[in-house]
Amino acid sequence: MTIFPDIKKPSLLVHRGRCRKNIASMAEFSRHNKVRFRPHFKTHQSTEVGNLFRESGIDQITVSSVSMARFFSDAGESDITIAFPVNVRELDDIVELSRKIRLGLLLESVESADLIGRSGLSADIWLKIDTGNRRTGIDCRDELSAGAILTSAGQFPGLRIRGLLTHAGHTYRAGSAKNILDVHKQSVCKMIRLRDRLTSSHGRLEISIGDTPALSLRPDLSEIDEIRPGNFVYYDATQLAMGVCAEDDIAAVAACPVVAHHKDRNELVIYGGAVHLSKDRIVAQGHDCYGLVVILNESGWSDLLPGASVTALSQEHGIVRGGGEIFDLFPIGSLIGVIPVHSCLTADLLRRETVMI
Amino acid sequence: MTIFPDIKKPSLLVHRGRCRKNIASMAEFSRHNKVRFRPHFKTHQSTEVGNLFRESGIDQITVSSVSMARFFSDAGESDITIAFPVNVRELDDIVELSRKIRLGLLLESVESADLIGRSGLSADIWLKIDTGNRRTGIDCRDELSAGAILTSAGQFPGLRIRGLLTHAGHTYRAGSAKNILDVHKQSVCKMIRLRDRLTSSHGRLEISIGDTPALSLRPDLSEIDEIRPGNFVYYDATQLAMGVCAEDDIAAVAACPVVAHHKDRNELVIYGGAVHLSKDRIVAQGHDCYGLVVILNESGWSDLLPGASVTALSQEHGIVRGGGEIFDLFPIGSLIGVIPVHSCLTADLLRRETVMI
Repeated sequence: MTIFPDIKKPSLLVHRGRCRKNIASMAEFSRHNKVRFRPHFKTHQSTEVGNLFRESGIDQITVSSVSMARFFSDAGESDITIAFPVNVRELDDIVELSRKIRLGLLLESVESADLIGRSGLSADIWLKIDTGNRRTGIDCRDELSAGAILTSAGQFPGLRIRGLLTHAGHTYRAGSAKNILDVHKQSVCKMIRLRDRLTSSHGRLEISIGDTPALSLRPDLSEIDEIRPGNFVYYDATQLAMGVCAEDDIAAVAACPVVAHHKDRNELVIYGGAVHLSKDRIVAQGHDCYGLVVILNESGWSDLLPGASVTALSQEHGIVRGGGEIFDLFPIGSLIGVIPVHSCLTADLLRRETVMI
Repeated sequence: MTIFPDIKKPSLLVHRGRCRKNIASMAEFSRHNKVRFRPHFKTHQSTEVGNLFRESGIDQITVSSVSMARFFSDAGESDITIAFPVNVRELDDIVELSRKIRLGLLLESVESADLIGRSGLSADIWLKIDTGNRRTGIDCRDELSAGAILTSAGQFPGLRIRGLLTHAGHTYRAGSAKNILDVHKQSVCKMIRLRDRLTSSHGRLEISIGDTPALSLRPDLSEIDEIRPGNFVYYDATQLAMGVCAEDDIAAVAACPVVAHHKDRNELVIYGGAVHLSKDRIVAQGHDCYGLVVILNESGWSDLLPGASVTALSQEHGIVRGGGEIFDLFPIGSLIGVIPVHSCLTADLLRRETVMI
C-alpha cells in the first residue's frame, strides 16, 4: 500500500504534466493554423483540468449539456458553446445562461430556431451539420433545410449566425490513420461545399469541426475557423488502438484495489466495475477489452503490461487476465492501474474520486 | 410537455406500485419456503425504495460495497452483508461499520481471514463459493481451501462463521427458463455437497444464494437458508428477454427528452446517452439494443412499442429507431420512455434524477 496509500476506492489519476503537454500541443497546432481552439470539456468535466486550459490562454470552451454549461459558467467560463441539439425542456435555463455568458447554441430545425428566437435570448448560432456520422444534424447535401433554418434564425436580432458545425464521429469507425484522414478530408470538403452554396444568401459562415482522432493527426486546416476536440486531453485505449496517440500521451488512469487472486485461471478480481470504468469496450485479439493494465509508481504509471487486460465487468467487480507475473505485481490490497477504453465515460463515473498527480 | 412537465433532463421513473408487488411476491415466496430474505440493495441504492422493503417487514439487506453499507447504515439499516470480497484498503471503515451494525463479510482467502480477524472486529462470516460463474470465490470442489479459511476465521472470537454464499451469475448466460433452472439446480447441489463435507469439522453451515433469474422462476428452496436477489425489484429488458419477468413487472423506466427527428432514417435523437443509460446492451434481432421504448402516461407508461429500440449511444445522445409513428408519438420536446437493458447500472447513473411515481 506504499503507492497512493490514501486511495481506498476506484479513483481516476489525472497526470497534470501529460495534460499540459497535450493541451500545449493542440493549442500550438491551432495557433499555427490561425483557427480558434474551443476544447470540449465533456471529457474531463473538471475545474482543475479547466484551469490547465486557462493557463494556456484558452477561454472559449465547448460542453455537451446545459448542466455542464452552468457548471463551467459557475466556475468562471464566459464563452461556452453547447454542442448538443437544443433541449427545449431546458429553455428557461438556457435563457438564464445567455444572460450571464456568451452562449453558443446548435440548431438543426426551423422549429427550434423559432422557439429559441421567440424566447428573446442572445446567442451565437451554429447549424449542426451531418457529414456522414449519422448521429444527428442536417444532411450536408440538404442546402434547402440549412437555408430555411438560417432564414428563420436571421429574423431574430438576438441570434447571431456564426456558421456550420460538425462532429465527424465516423472517424472512430475508420480503422486506420490513413482512413481517419480520408474521412476527415471528405467531411471538410462537404462542409466547404455547403458553406459556399449558402454564403451568397446568408453572408459569411464559419466552419467548426470536432473530433480528436483526425485533429490528433494534424490535418490541413486551411478552410477551418474553429476546432473542438475533447478527448485529446486524456486520450485512452480506444485512441491508442486507432494509432492517433502514443502510450505516453495518455493522461488518465483508473486506480483500482485488487481484492482476489485466481491463479488457476490467471485472473485477478479488482474493485472496479461497470459503475467505475463504464461498459464501453474495444475488441482486442478477438476478446472484449474493458481496459489495459499498467503498474502505478511514484510518478504516475508504467508502460503497458503486455498481455494483461480487463476482460469482464459486472457492477462493482472487474476481471483482469494476464501472465503469471500479475500475482506478484499486484498482491491483494495493492492498486492496479487501468487505462480506460473511453476516458470520457470513466472520468464521468469517477468525477468525485479524481486525484491530480 | 403535459406528461411530467417538471422533468427537463434524463430521469429514472420508479413505479412504487410495481416495486411493492415485486417485493411482496418475493417476500411471500421466501416466507412460504422458510428462508431468510436479504434483498440486494445495489440495484436501487435508494432510501425510498428501501422504505418499501421495510414496509414489507424486511430488515436484513445485502450491498456490494463498503460505501453502500455506510449509506444504508446511515439510513437506519442495522443488519447488512457486503457481498463483495473484503477490500483491505477499507479495513478501517469496515471496523467502524462493525461497531454500528450487524455486519456480514465475505471471505475467499486465508490472508483476508487473518487480516480481518486480527483487526478485532465482530462480523458474520460467509465463504464466497464459485459454483461455475467464474467471477470470484473458492471453487466449490476445493474443500481444502474452504476448510482452511474456516479454520483460520474460527480462531478469532469476533468472527461468527455463518456458512457458504454464492452468486450463480451464470444463470444470465443460460439462454432459457429451463436452462436457468438447470444451472440453478446444479449450483445448489454443489453448495449442498460442499456444505455436507465441511459440516463434520466445522459445525452447521448455512447456504445463501443470489440471482434474480433463477429466484424469479420460484425454484425449490428446500436446502437453502437465505436468498439475496436484487434486480427483481425493478427488472429490465435483460430479464424480460430471458423470460423471467413479464412486461408489467418492470418498475423502472428512464424518461428522456426528444431533441431531434431524422425521418429519412426513422430515427429520433434523445437526450439520454451512455452517462445516463450505461453502455450495457443486449443483442435483439441481430442488432445491439441499449433499451426498449414505451410511451409515458399519467399513471406510468404503456406496453412496449413494437419494433422501436435504442440502437446507439454516445456520451449524451441516444438514437431511437422505430416505425414511422415514433415522430407523431414523440414530438421534439416530449419525453420518451426507455426500459433499461440493465436497471442496476441505469439506476446508479440516474441516482440523483430519480422520481417515484
